[in-house]
Amino acid sequence: STRFAVALAALTMLVGPVAAKALDAGLARRPEGPEAVPEAIESTEARVLVIGFGRFGQILTQVLLAEGVSVTVIDKDVDQIRSAARFGFRIYYGDGTRLDVLRAAGIGRAELLCICVDDSEAALKIVDIVHEEFSSVRTYVRAFDRTHAVELMNRDVDFQLRETVESALAFGRATLEGLGLSSEAAAATAEDVRKRDVARLVLQQAGALTDTMSWARGLNEIKPEPLTEPKRPSRALNAETRDIIGSQRREAATRTLETDDDYQSQQQEARTDA
Amino acid sequence: STRFAVALAALTMLVGPVAAKALDAGLARRPEGPEAVPEAIESTEARVLVIGFGRFGQILTQVLLAEGVSVTVIDKDVDQIRSAARFGFRIYYGDGTRLDVLRAAGIGRAELLCICVDDSEAALKIVDIVHEEFSSVRTYVRAFDRTHAVELMNRDVDFQLRETVESALAFGRATLEGLGLSSEAAAATAEDVRKRDVARLVLQQAGALTDTMSWARGLNEIKPEPLTEPKRPSRALNAETRDIIGSQRREAATRTLETDDDYQSQQQEARTDA
Repeated sequence: STRFAVALAALTMLVGPVAAKALDAGLARRPEGPEAVPEAIESTEARVLVIGFGRFGQILTQVLLAEGVSVTVIDKDVDQIRSAARFGFRIYYGDGTRLDVLRAAGIGRAELLCICVDDSEAALKIVDIVHEEFSSVRTYVRAFDRTHAVELMNRDVDFQLRETVESALAFGRATLEGLGLSSEAAAATAEDVRKRDVARLVLQQAGALTDTMSWARGLNEIKPEPLTEPKRPSRALNAETRDIIGSQRREAATRTLETDDDYQSQQQEARTDA
Repeated sequence: STRFAVALAALTMLVGPVAAKALDAGLARRPEGPEAVPEAIESTEARVLVIGFGRFGQILTQVLLAEGVSVTVIDKDVDQIRSAARFGFRIYYGDGTRLDVLRAAGIGRAELLCICVDDSEAALKIVDIVHEEFSSVRTYVRAFDRTHAVELMNRDVDFQLRETVESALAFGRATLEGLGLSSEAAAATAEDVRKRDVARLVLQQAGALTDTMSWARGLNEIKPEPLTEPKRPSRALNAETRDIIGSQRREAATRTLETDDDYQSQQQEARTDA
């Protein structure tokens, strides 16, 4: 069909004619032959244990599969188990937050555990079990948000990454390109934001960026803050917005386009709060 | 405290001493002075309209803020509106799926719309409204998963990105490094997977990778497939897993470690199915 021809043309631009043809033929094989990460033993045990074969685990394991790394997948969802069966993995249908399941799936002989569940509390529970029972296994964890990331850092996991942060950065890069910025400049800005963001995370974990009151209230008080100083105050575009923003003393510098009357007094309040 | 000193040291390694000090002092300023993306007019209108200030929108707008791009944020959550007020944006508290809200927030004069809501259906609804009413505005959309991405591509959005795909790729890269692969080799493999993944998405949109039956059933039938051919069949690690995997004819090549009896007959079935 025409649609298919267009898709193939787009594909060719994207990955080159050879790869496009290979994909067109069905499953693509990797051009390189030998495995870059050789197995210690061609054993029945996997080097990496992955808990959770949802959106995140599926893409992660594509990367491991591309290098021929042996993988065991645990999932408690029947459909995900069926999907995993197409990937040539060792598969365990069960609840990955249970010690007996982890043991039966062979965590004791895995080098690395990737916790990719879509449930922040379950992820923390697994980390606690594994650090207690299998301290030699490294823990790599999908984090939900900033608060979850700090909780994971506090548990000394070996690696954590917020599940939406990299796509959001790439999305920002694409948006800048859409506004006319060069690809290089957009990438540099996104990289700069990534570094500032991680730096802020490190300080947040140390408690340096939480004021006394919110620190006492706990991690739930971690709030988004600009990593670049805004050049102008925020502006509410309708009365309801002004009501919401105005009710916060911290945002007192915010003025509205509708009623600028109380802007001066609010700004003075803001100074005493800073 | 000691913890804070450790954090500052880590920070210094990460972003260099000057940036670390700036962050430590509170808000960081960008080193460069002039805006790389100059405003057409220093107007009350924003170039970019962002719907949704959740995890995704917050990081995206950090990138825009770093370049001094003017932004209007729409959100229907009071807490998110309060957070956005710290960023110096134009802010509209309201439902971004409503035509009147979009109009009041100034979509008519925006160059680009970033739809970052955490609701696939709402995102599609906004796309439909905007393409119908404001066809000159470009649409950049946060996609939930593969199916959603194809639906967005079918609507001819200008850009879509699955919200977890980039973090999952970066996570895979980090895992390979954790297994001893060099940083360069791990990055190259992740990049290779990204290209194959996008290529597959393009073919999926064209309908080339969906068999007749599932095409008739619609997009919900899009299923994960390995982008690299597995070197061995999957293995079920317990009886329940075998029951699940065995019940699918497509996964008939999968054998179990526990009962290999019916492996031969299953494999023949698999061949006729392929």
